Amino acid sequence: MTDKEEYYEESLRLHARHKGKLEITGKVRVRTEEEMKVAYLPGAIEPCLLIERAGEDARKYSIKANTIAVVSDGSAVPGLGNIGGPAALPMIEGKALLFKEFGEVDAFPLCLSTQDPDEIVLTVKSISPAFGGICLDGISAPGCFEIKRRLREELDIPVWLDSGDGIAAVVNAALINACRLTGRPLSELKAVVFGAGAAGSAIAKMLVRENVQDIVVCDSKGIISASRISEFEEDKLELLELTNKNGLSGNLMDAIAGRDLFIGVSKPDILTEVMVRSMAKEPWIFALADPDPEILPEKAKAAGAYITCTGSQDYANYITNTLLTPGLFRGLLDAEADGINDEIVSAAIRELAGLVPGDELSEDCLLPFIFDEDVAARIAEAVAKVVAEKTI
Amino acid sequence: MTDKEEYYEESLRLHARHKGKLEITGKVRVRTEEEMKVAYLPGAIEPCLLIERAGEDARKYSIKANTIAVVSDGSAVPGLGNIGGPAALPMIEGKALLFKEFGEVDAFPLCLSTQDPDEIVLTVKSISPAFGGICLDGISAPGCFEIKRRLREELDIPVWLDSGDGIAAVVNAALINACRLTGRPLSELKAVVFGAGAAGSAIAKMLVRENVQDIVVCDSKGIISASRISEFEEDKLELLELTNKNGLSGNLMDAIAGRDLFIGVSKPDILTEVMVRSMAKEPWIFALADPDPEILPEKAKAAGAYITCTGSQDYANYITNTLLTPGLFRGLLDAEADGINDEIVSAAIRELAGLVPGDELSEDCLLPFIFDEDVAARIAEAVAKVVAEKTI
Repeated sequence: MTDKEEYYEESLRLHARHKGKLEITGKVRVRTEEEMKVAYLPGAIEPCLLIERAGEDARKYSIKANTIAVVSDGSAVPGLGNIGGPAALPMIEGKALLFKEFGEVDAFPLCLSTQDPDEIVLTVKSISPAFGGICLDGISAPGCFEIKRRLREELDIPVWLDSGDGIAAVVNAALINACRLTGRPLSELKAVVFGAGAAGSAIAKMLVRENVQDIVVCDSKGIISASRISEFEEDKLELLELTNKNGLSGNLMDAIAGRDLFIGVSKPDILTEVMVRSMAKEPWIFALADPDPEILPEKAKAAGAYITCTGSQDYANYITNTLLTPGLFRGLLDAEADGINDEIVSAAIRELAGLVPGDELSEDCLLPFIFDEDVAARIAEAVAKVVAEKTI
Repeated sequence: MTDKEEYYEESLRLHARHKGKLEITGKVRVRTEEEMKVAYLPGAIEPCLLIERAGEDARKYSIKANTIAVVSDGSAVPGLGNIGGPAALPMIEGKALLFKEFGEVDAFPLCLSTQDPDEIVLTVKSISPAFGGICLDGISAPGCFEIKRRLREELDIPVWLDSGDGIAAVVNAALINACRLTGRPLSELKAVVFGAGAAGSAIAKMLVRENVQDIVVCDSKGIISASRISEFEEDKLELLELTNKNGLSGNLMDAIAGRDLFIGVSKPDILTEVMVRSMAKEPWIFALADPDPEILPEKAKAAGAYITCTGSQDYANYITNTLLTPGLFRGLLDAEADGINDEIVSAAIRELAGLVPGDELSEDCLLPFIFDEDVAARIAEAVAKVVAEKTI
């Protein structure tokens, strides 16, 4: 199969045949009176009591040890946009399945019937006891930022925004390796980010953390600049504060001229070869739109790009949060982390980048192959180490 | 093993070893690029679109087809009382496991951090898209009734209160068979229900539905009677309206004298042999307190009881909602039911009772053995038939 239509047909057959890609199974059997007494009544009274009266951690005795919720309101689903929580279920189930396959993490897809940030925060807080972590996914900006911030304040388990921080983290790893490969310092690159939603904002902030000095962010209406300040909400005011130090204004064409690095998280086919040619010599093009890139890698290369990355498995340098997130949560769960911070994420990113040995590094190999078996395990180990050091 | 302490020890070992009794596993594999494209991106776009744009039922393509939530705020956990949602997790996991073992239903244990009915309703509504049914469990009265009522109004999936309606339904089946056995008409029995929480209320209402004429309900302060009207909330006002037609008042001792039927859902060891002796000849004693009965069956028998039922596997006539609920939800899911009503529940109850053939029926065999393989399947079939007839 090569044609997308064929994937759609095969996918529909698969979804209709299995009616869902996940199953909840018992780790223990209940086929006899004895087994029922141990697993349920009266046996289960005892771990309940130890959690309640002795204050023991539920992770010692329950699924909280290895279970996360993948939470989505379906407002920003890859390739689909705002389709709502109920319709997003097959996609979020797919994401949950990847957690199991890549990280041995039990992930439950919680698709929500509400898109109200207050209600989402209340809901996730309410259901949190059964979970050792929360992975927010496919929630639109700016709501997703507020939801993440409030949940991190209120919960004692890690909360992660995969459609934002997850993408930014893998882009970060690819950039680290592009710098290893070329010897160019990341901080000196002139960057343009196209897209100012969950992913674009997170990528811009990641570039700031990496000390990139010249960053311009564009949304669909043009450059995030002071001239547009009246139309901005808090999230874009923050981007304006952090980026565009030279006070550029205009459209993407204006923004891209002379830049070394383009990172697009926008729409398919919006980047032209003319635009790439207007960039600095041998630019790096991250064309991460789903399901098709802003520009096809071969076109970008023909227009002079040195490095091309996409969000598709069909090309070299496949940028997907699945490279990082299953290992990240594996490590967080293993270490019984009660939260997540930049230090932990940075360890995961640097481990991911380091998984490509120097002699394999090339402009077409900036990241490990997603099906390499030890990717998640290595990231998990690096993460758990940082968490343990903080806890001690 | 016979001693409860041994079950507790064995249970603790089991819970600590497995860290949870449930696992979320994939029905499909994702080990190759092809498989990932079919199960996740871009493949999963197609079923999402069919649900969103063509209005197809998510049950066709997602876990909603076979997944229910077991929802508890831990306010009324069997044998434990109000321990809160987080501590209730091992017990609610156990319940979820029973759904899988007995009914092939995927059940996720959602233990809540809130005990506020408004927040519980909002939370369950919000998470409902991934589920084909909601089983409320271990939620205290009167909140549980309001939560059930509001969720039934607002959701288009079945909502069931297992710790109330589930117990009442199995008591109902046992009573039907006790009447088959003895030839006594249920409606003419003089009944006392001890306990006016979720189970007691549901049992009293079930007796009303079965046309039992003389019903008295006691709570811990005595008979639900007009003399106490000032202390009652809505749930007990409703019980007062429905029961105690002769205007009795007093304590359990006053209530029980001359009764044919005692149904206790209260505390261990509160029913004395003297009380049983004060009842009518050959009374029926349902001593359903968890984990130990209100009176041991041998003591009740010694005091003249003809029929004894408990909530423990250690005695004949084990009353547990697990006899009915896995099959009930199996049938509801199979028939893609958008709700549940008395007719459906009645079909399940009558099927359960009918599973004991006339020649096996005895005072010590009023219900099928819980591990009989066809119990859930037969109930499911009866339920699905009623749902299908209503839908056509």
